[in-house]
Amino acid sequence: MHRYRSHTCAQLRKADVGTTTRLSGWVHRVRDHGGLLFIDLRDHYGLTQIVADPDSPCFKTAETVRGEWVIRVDGEVKARTPETVNPNLPTGEIEIFALEMEVLSASKELPLPVFGEPDYPEDVRLKYRFLDLRRDTLHKNIVKRTQIIAAMRRRMTDVGFTEYSTPILTASSPEGARDFLVPSRIHPGNFYALPQAPQQYKQLLMVAGFDRYFQIAPCFRDEDPRADRLPGEFYQLDLEMSFVEQEDIWTTMEPIMRGIFEEFAEGKPVTQKFPRIPYDEAIRKYGSDKPDLRNPIEMQAVTEHFAGSGFKVFANMIAANPKVEVWAIPAKTGGSRAFCDRMNAWAQQQGQPGLGYIFWRKEGEKLEGAGPLAKNIGEERTEAVRTQLGLADGDACFFVAGEPSKFYKFAGEARTRAGEELNLVDRDRFELCWIVDFPFFEWSEEEKKIDFAHNPFSMPQGGLEALNGADPLSIKAYQYDMVCNGFEIASGSIRNQSPELMVAAFEKVGLSKADVEERFGGLYRAFQYGAPPHGGMAAGIDRVVMLLVGAKNLREISLFPMNQQAEDLLMGAPSPATPTQLRELALRPLPPKA
Amino acid sequence: MHRYRSHTCAQLRKADVGTTTRLSGWVHRVRDHGGLLFIDLRDHYGLTQIVADPDSPCFKTAETVRGEWVIRVDGEVKARTPETVNPNLPTGEIEIFALEMEVLSASKELPLPVFGEPDYPEDVRLKYRFLDLRRDTLHKNIVKRTQIIAAMRRRMTDVGFTEYSTPILTASSPEGARDFLVPSRIHPGNFYALPQAPQQYKQLLMVAGFDRYFQIAPCFRDEDPRADRLPGEFYQLDLEMSFVEQEDIWTTMEPIMRGIFEEFAEGKPVTQKFPRIPYDEAIRKYGSDKPDLRNPIEMQAVTEHFAGSGFKVFANMIAANPKVEVWAIPAKTGGSRAFCDRMNAWAQQQGQPGLGYIFWRKEGEKLEGAGPLAKNIGEERTEAVRTQLGLADGDACFFVAGEPSKFYKFAGEARTRAGEELNLVDRDRFELCWIVDFPFFEWSEEEKKIDFAHNPFSMPQGGLEALNGADPLSIKAYQYDMVCNGFEIASGSIRNQSPELMVAAFEKVGLSKADVEERFGGLYRAFQYGAPPHGGMAAGIDRVVMLLVGAKNLREISLFPMNQQAEDLLMGAPSPATPTQLRELALRPLPPKA
Repeated sequence: MHRYRSHTCAQLRKADVGTTTRLSGWVHRVRDHGGLLFIDLRDHYGLTQIVADPDSPCFKTAETVRGEWVIRVDGEVKARTPETVNPNLPTGEIEIFALEMEVLSASKELPLPVFGEPDYPEDVRLKYRFLDLRRDTLHKNIVKRTQIIAAMRRRMTDVGFTEYSTPILTASSPEGARDFLVPSRIHPGNFYALPQAPQQYKQLLMVAGFDRYFQIAPCFRDEDPRADRLPGEFYQLDLEMSFVEQEDIWTTMEPIMRGIFEEFAEGKPVTQKFPRIPYDEAIRKYGSDKPDLRNPIEMQAVTEHFAGSGFKVFANMIAANPKVEVWAIPAKTGGSRAFCDRMNAWAQQQGQPGLGYIFWRKEGEKLEGAGPLAKNIGEERTEAVRTQLGLADGDACFFVAGEPSKFYKFAGEARTRAGEELNLVDRDRFELCWIVDFPFFEWSEEEKKIDFAHNPFSMPQGGLEALNGADPLSIKAYQYDMVCNGFEIASGSIRNQSPELMVAAFEKVGLSKADVEERFGGLYRAFQYGAPPHGGMAAGIDRVVMLLVGAKNLREISLFPMNQQAEDLLMGAPSPATPTQLRELALRPLPPKA
Repeated sequence: MHRYRSHTCAQLRKADVGTTTRLSGWVHRVRDHGGLLFIDLRDHYGLTQIVADPDSPCFKTAETVRGEWVIRVDGEVKARTPETVNPNLPTGEIEIFALEMEVLSASKELPLPVFGEPDYPEDVRLKYRFLDLRRDTLHKNIVKRTQIIAAMRRRMTDVGFTEYSTPILTASSPEGARDFLVPSRIHPGNFYALPQAPQQYKQLLMVAGFDRYFQIAPCFRDEDPRADRLPGEFYQLDLEMSFVEQEDIWTTMEPIMRGIFEEFAEGKPVTQKFPRIPYDEAIRKYGSDKPDLRNPIEMQAVTEHFAGSGFKVFANMIAANPKVEVWAIPAKTGGSRAFCDRMNAWAQQQGQPGLGYIFWRKEGEKLEGAGPLAKNIGEERTEAVRTQLGLADGDACFFVAGEPSKFYKFAGEARTRAGEELNLVDRDRFELCWIVDFPFFEWSEEEKKIDFAHNPFSMPQGGLEALNGADPLSIKAYQYDMVCNGFEIASGSIRNQSPELMVAAFEKVGLSKADVEERFGGLYRAFQYGAPPHGGMAAGIDRVVMLLVGAKNLREISLFPMNQQAEDLLMGAPSPATPTQLRELALRPLPPKA
């Protein structure tokens, strides 16, 4: 017989009754029923119940074991009596009568209980992560994470993608976030950088003649801690294709991502055909480029109903500035003064002057618009608003006015809040869509100049002609996001692979050809020696896993995460370097500022 | 029709003749047969021949294109005449008569030719790696590399392993080679380290209750450039299993590795059952713990035949020191004075006093041992040596004497040289074996103390009893290597998961319990809360790929390697940090030493 086990703790069934078995695992729980000991033995695969009574040859040992000890048990597989069968456990029809028991590894007093998963401070959980990971929920989340990643690999391979690993010690990349630097010992004073993404390498792979690249890619950004991003590293499903237009990326990746969601959604509905929503439309309808489409609220412009109306605040704004619009946030079933006032109070907490509203109620046979706005604009305009939005008795509508570029975010938040407060959002589904036609440039208020809105490597729609046109801010990019339930889960573009177009685009943001050569030399050089049209995207694996396991915190789906202070409490990182290390790297840490 | 292609350049066959097609790719070669242009169009998948004559509507464009331009071609699939069929090309029965041609991306004068793959200086190849990678051999090597890695993943998954990614930003590890450090911005003066291997994390995974871990793991060592190791990063197939003995690792991994070799060996024979050779035996037979078993030479001790013999050099050494042995390196077919003298000269180049030999030849009916040694020890002893080694007419034997621990490496090199010079080595096969029972400790001549021979985390055979015994240097570890054709391709062990045993083992090398706690705190702590018996190994992916593609240089199987000075010539790394970066990291580079 094997030294440690003949079966896993998830394997034995009624058909095994009468056989002898050998199991090894962790003591999940011990129950002492007056001289009759029940030990739940746990391994990676499952749980099996061990029984020992004073007749067991190993009863003395069995009495000593405690939670999380590792033991080996030899015993006889017995059927449980009908009333003790546990239908929730695959091994619930049997138990093992212990004949021999060996303690393979005892445990000290536990700093963090495993059984029952009581709440515990995060620093203890991270320091004793090896105990935390034994907890059922986290163990299951991690296993599911590995399954999701394996499914990504399988599905990408099935449609002809090949996984290539790109370098992790690479050059500092001047775009985007802050790099982690790695000092070079052989070239003192010089540094490698960890890749923020394999963007340039995957494009170089396309120029090198490979096709359909993907990678489960480690990415590194030295950003200040944020709730939705772990310090340090994260993983992307990164991909790139040659000789494609954006339509090809969409039709390739939509079935893959839909398939992954369906495979792990545990029966929850998943969008079958992802709507393609232009960025401008997403902003106007949802106030966001990552709309939660489970929320049925769609905003509409109702400017005309307020222009010249008796609601002077809006009417004057509209008269004074042709850019001003009034947007309506229809809120079905929100038609109570209490709800509308709550929304108004919330808006004020957000630093807004308030949130105008109308709600409709039956007064006898008559449907009446209530609230101060309705009074000010009068019955006819109130009715026109209601008709446009398709609202009825018991519904409400909120109004935001100003320049849309300045208020859309708040309007989007109000839409979200109204949808959630009114339970209009069906939480048990996955609503996916594409957001397309992102703007290529944006106006940087900070720097008072035009800047790239997203990826400087994206292809501007309209090419050189558009770049030389009158209004660069009106240029769209072949750039798209995939969004699920209000989260951006992937982002991509068709790349600008023309050296001339690249220089022209960078000139618009104030960078010269020499700057491009200096900052993106490898890629810019490559484009001059036969570069295929190409494009791709990258999906955030952590976010997809969080959505699929229903986790709110990245640490619930990560193996060995750092804490919010970017510390690894388990391994003790970061830590001071030794004098030898610093000497070899020719570095001197500066004294901390007073 | 698709904007860029209806088919890849490897797809069209005779059955497609008469259809119209659209292809995109790189111009591999243009041949001008007096007004008739042949363009070999290449993409990731293959080659297709395009033909244009002055009747082609796009002839003018076709005349302009040059090597490595990216073009799109619309045309008619035509059958080649029987005498122009190319049987070496999957598309060799057809060609495309060009009707329309679009230049998608022109190329400047090439700094590195793609077609024909002429030799080029390595710095040019690395700077223009995107061109280098288009060359057929390198392209094929990289594709095969991805296939080998995919096969590793598939085979590991098939037998129940799960892939987990372990952190890349982690703690400095005091064992082994030099770490790459990553300065922390949030904790100035502190550093993360890139993992030399996920050793501690994979063991923590086992303690955390997972089972059958594997990872295609990026590993980082800041070592000085070596011919057989790229600067920076490399990949291992890393794995670990719980509740196992070393036999389990062997029986699990042997079929996987054999399967991978068979899958990619292109018909070359692969060892079916890997011999398990104890370390001591490998040293005695092959003079190496990574023997090339394609070389049939096995050394033997022949001390007795020289003890008290007329060959005074050896006889006196044997008499003076009981540790002295004489080893014989039998060399079948090496029985000529010319060969034996060449070996002797080579030994002197290696700094040895020489290499004694005997060779046998027929003198009339008589088999005679020739050479000075034979004369000195006389006919009887010469014949005894011959009989022991099973040598015959035309064979030779070389002799090395001294303390085996001091000469075994040279003896092994002599064995290798003799086998290769005499063409005894069958190069077209993969001979795999396990080397087992490695010593746990070794004597460090430098530090004049006992040190770990290999992995300090390995389990010593005999446990606490052996550690407390008289001769620590005689202790073996549950430690093993997998060797192929003279290269170590994998290494592993059963781990020491007992805190007491760990402390006892470290004490032998002069480290206290406090040292263990400080240096390996995470792991040492984990072992105190229920640690399963576990073990594993790690296979060097680069080496396996090199063996399977027959490459001599790591840069022939790597996508974007650094040069021997640890520079990425393509991306320009490493490079100086900006003042802002240095300020954020609170670091000051020291001025270079004069």
